[in-house]
Amino acid sequence: MLLSYDGFAFHGFQRQKDLPTVELALEEALSLLDKKGRKVKVTGAGRTDRGVHALGQVVHFDISWPHGPAALRKALEANLPSSIGIYEVVPVDFAFHARRSALWRKYAYFIWKGDCRLPHLSRYVWWNRRGWDMDLAKKFLTMIKGFHDFGAFCRKADRPSDARRTIMEAGIEEKGPLLKISVTGRSFLTNMVRIIVGTMDEIATGRKSLEDISRLLSGGSRGEAGPTAPAEGLFLWEVRYDPMPFGCEEYNAVTGNFIL
Amino acid sequence: MLLSYDGFAFHGFQRQKDLPTVELALEEALSLLDKKGRKVKVTGAGRTDRGVHALGQVVHFDISWPHGPAALRKALEANLPSSIGIYEVVPVDFAFHARRSALWRKYAYFIWKGDCRLPHLSRYVWWNRRGWDMDLAKKFLTMIKGFHDFGAFCRKADRPSDARRTIMEAGIEEKGPLLKISVTGRSFLTNMVRIIVGTMDEIATGRKSLEDISRLLSGGSRGEAGPTAPAEGLFLWEVRYDPMPFGCEEYNAVTGNFIL
Repeated sequence: MLLSYDGFAFHGFQRQKDLPTVELALEEALSLLDKKGRKVKVTGAGRTDRGVHALGQVVHFDISWPHGPAALRKALEANLPSSIGIYEVVPVDFAFHARRSALWRKYAYFIWKGDCRLPHLSRYVWWNRRGWDMDLAKKFLTMIKGFHDFGAFCRKADRPSDARRTIMEAGIEEKGPLLKISVTGRSFLTNMVRIIVGTMDEIATGRKSLEDISRLLSGGSRGEAGPTAPAEGLFLWEVRYDPMPFGCEEYNAVTGNFIL
Repeated sequence: MLLSYDGFAFHGFQRQKDLPTVELALEEALSLLDKKGRKVKVTGAGRTDRGVHALGQVVHFDISWPHGPAALRKALEANLPSSIGIYEVVPVDFAFHARRSALWRKYAYFIWKGDCRLPHLSRYVWWNRRGWDMDLAKKFLTMIKGFHDFGAFCRKADRPSDARRTIMEAGIEEKGPLLKISVTGRSFLTNMVRIIVGTMDEIATGRKSLEDISRLLSGGSRGEAGPTAPAEGLFLWEVRYDPMPFGCEEYNAVTGNFIL
């Protein structure tokens, strides 16, 4: 199924005992609906951290449900907190795996560089008032595209032995003081997009140079990259499969103009 | 000054004893800043009801403040709750009056007609799942343009003896199941935009006919129009003056892509 959630309501996607997590909320609601009374487990395409939002998360699960996918969507949404919305539930083949079948994932990060507070958007943007050299910001995004060792852009405790990843697309859109940074890759390391944005802030304000980055991209320590940007600006935006199992009409209407 | 606020936090714009209202919050914060310690009174361009949002409200006031408008904006925002944002403070001539100098006001109303819940936008849209005939909805908006007696589109207790008003523009934008209705007029009656939207819902679902409306527009009772649509979808969007006292850069960045 394709779903969205407000990261403010959760301690991240992944189950953590009894803390409110997206996984726990989904599994509790789905288990209530299983006709054989079994516990339903879900597998998500991306494990978002605490406070991170999703507009296009995908999860798969097995359930006994005789009434069809539209009725399941409706029943499920009725059993979930208002911080989770279910766009679509579709039946898939047993071979489909939300994480492993994904071709790529796209994250979006919103930054507000204005002087004034935004009461309606404050939960969804990083309010960063430092003056940015947009040319440097764009050069940085161009540099990170491609296949690199992103070990320095990973939470230290989670760094894998092979931290090489491919960034397929990275770009920035501007509307005056409102920025949207988009990063697309097959898979990401823990906190990778937030550390990319935090490093971009240091580049764009001259605290780090592009030369520092070119060294970092062939390996480096976490301390050499910038800080982890706040969770509130980050959205798991899209997960792509081939073929796409969803129609996406409602998803497209929401993401097509969301903030910027 | 030009400001925005989240209507959820307030019992409307206008002061009501000690209830949290936008007027009270602004007057308390400004009075703290007045160098002569005087109580500052504000006058708003539009009195939004309880729960109604503003992205472009304008208020004027007199204050003793020696440090210039940019410093006043900053000091004021620091003294206000996070549900109010101040885009710009500009000095104006004594002849300027936020309400009386306004040429027109524009309201926007957002409707979500999708099946699924929108966790990030639920405070800002009316979730109305009834099937709409968009052609009827558009014809209705065309009919209300111009100079009519809108007495039936006013909260009963507030109906003035002369309820004739001019609607300069009325239109609807669609992006799949997301709708934005915009209504522009010199001035509005109490609840007028919400009753227009509530009546539009009855027209677009066939519960009222366009003939009913043409009769209503030359006067009618409140009961003959549709119900008052919920406050959460409504935004005071723009107030226009000639000349405009504001630069509007941040305002334009926010309103240019807000929801739709």
